[in-house]
Amino acid sequence: MNTSRPREDVWIERWTGKLQARRIPGLRQGLGHDCAVLAAPSRELDLVLKTDAVVEGVHFLRTTPASLVGRKALARALSDLAAAGATPRAALVTVGCPDKKSAARLQSVYRGLAQAARRWRVAIVGGETVRTRQLLLSVSLTGTVPRGLSPHRGGARPGHLLFVTGTLGGSWPRRHLTFTPRLKEGQWLARKKLPSAMMDLSDGLGADLPRLARMSRVGFRIDSKKLPLSPGANLRQAVSRGEDYELLFAVPPAKSDRLRKTWPFSTRLTPIGVCLPARSGFQAGDLPLQGYDHLR
Amino acid sequence: MNTSRPREDVWIERWTGKLQARRIPGLRQGLGHDCAVLAAPSRELDLVLKTDAVVEGVHFLRTTPASLVGRKALARALSDLAAAGATPRAALVTVGCPDKKSAARLQSVYRGLAQAARRWRVAIVGGETVRTRQLLLSVSLTGTVPRGLSPHRGGARPGHLLFVTGTLGGSWPRRHLTFTPRLKEGQWLARKKLPSAMMDLSDGLGADLPRLARMSRVGFRIDSKKLPLSPGANLRQAVSRGEDYELLFAVPPAKSDRLRKTWPFSTRLTPIGVCLPARSGFQAGDLPLQGYDHLR
Repeated sequence: MNTSRPREDVWIERWTGKLQARRIPGLRQGLGHDCAVLAAPSRELDLVLKTDAVVEGVHFLRTTPASLVGRKALARALSDLAAAGATPRAALVTVGCPDKKSAARLQSVYRGLAQAARRWRVAIVGGETVRTRQLLLSVSLTGTVPRGLSPHRGGARPGHLLFVTGTLGGSWPRRHLTFTPRLKEGQWLARKKLPSAMMDLSDGLGADLPRLARMSRVGFRIDSKKLPLSPGANLRQAVSRGEDYELLFAVPPAKSDRLRKTWPFSTRLTPIGVCLPARSGFQAGDLPLQGYDHLR
Repeated sequence: MNTSRPREDVWIERWTGKLQARRIPGLRQGLGHDCAVLAAPSRELDLVLKTDAVVEGVHFLRTTPASLVGRKALARALSDLAAAGATPRAALVTVGCPDKKSAARLQSVYRGLAQAARRWRVAIVGGETVRTRQLLLSVSLTGTVPRGLSPHRGGARPGHLLFVTGTLGGSWPRRHLTFTPRLKEGQWLARKKLPSAMMDLSDGLGADLPRLARMSRVGFRIDSKKLPLSPGANLRQAVSRGEDYELLFAVPPAKSDRLRKTWPFSTRLTPIGVCLPARSGFQAGDLPLQGYDHLR
């Protein structure tokens, strides 16, 4: 009888052992069981769910340091939670890797994941490793937001002002791997009930703003001179390059003064334009309103 | 100014539009937003989380009908929820596909997903499509279980009897694509507090039973003559082939009579052995205790 353990079990235990260093209140079962089981959050909270994948050749290169791949996989999903005003709680991580020769790289991926999980206080409570032709990570995040306060993409109205955090266009060559998801800012905005619509900028303002506008059934006008450019970036890059991971949100005019006066963060806050009636269309001068298409 | 919509948006909207046909109570935001937002479940419930991926060349073939690929992706994750005694609630689905030529195949994948979601009452509330070298699906499932009642893998004790549902070894060529996750059975067992440990058989009894035994720190003895073989399957296949998606669970002897007398399902229920002290090791005659290793 063969009682040797499948290598998958041993690998996963060794590398994920450190992942679950952070136990969260109410965690009943984590890694090693069929499912993760957690106490339900208070009824004062809503549950926020997000899944996001990074794929070699699309979101990172074969030469990208593997620990930064792990970091990016978690940070991208956290950026979406930031846009929902949510506080992250637990994550499940699926890692696809090509073969045994990837062992060292895979270990670095898990190290980057573990560091990012500690930094942003996420408990990695489950996941799996599967064999794929290219390295990829799929992260599922669970978080919470005060009941009814998660902004979405559909609440902007004509006259609402458009803001972005940070600067745009500086994602390459490195910032797309090292950015800080705007969790604090997103949580603050949601709790203050300031945004009528909010999303994170992952595909570039030129692709993402039209999405927000379509969900809200509004048009918009962007003042290209006001766009906050990252050092060294030009306007085209700020609109089309993608992977800024900044927050884009609309604020009713009656609340915009309060927003600007009480904004407690060092993160830059810039008004970039205004929402218009849908019939006014998308007015952005000659800015190319077209972002990165993951399937192109 | 280019106002054409990125193809990804249009694809995803067209094919996922039918996915969210099932709205669930408390769903505040679903497809089309950065995150899915749901009302937290009652504090009487625990939250159950699971992620599971299927990959072309590993879990299905290039020639597998695509709608069955979609079905299998969801059914596999549901089988894990069954082992946790959970009722599924919401799913996020990430689909990785190679290129434009996959469009028709991808559409069938989504059709299979939608049919499975309707059948098992799962709301698909989010997800994304990414470009990968081979077709793959990663499903994240959220469900609920009565507070504190989810069985896990670590509660079996020496003397507890081991049971399996259904029959083993018949997964190929087709049943691994068309199996029924044992949700009703798992929910019933958990609510009746019968299992001291439970898991689903995905890698084969020969790999999965040792996992349950290690988590519970017990040994076991299996009576190979008692194993319920699928039609046409031999003992080796029943132990090593994997993808049975049946439930394996341990029951204290004081409860085993009640289990057998009150089992309300037509699904076969078979006692296959007994847990032993850890020092007794794994006793299975000459059965090969080694299942399928996803990384081999």
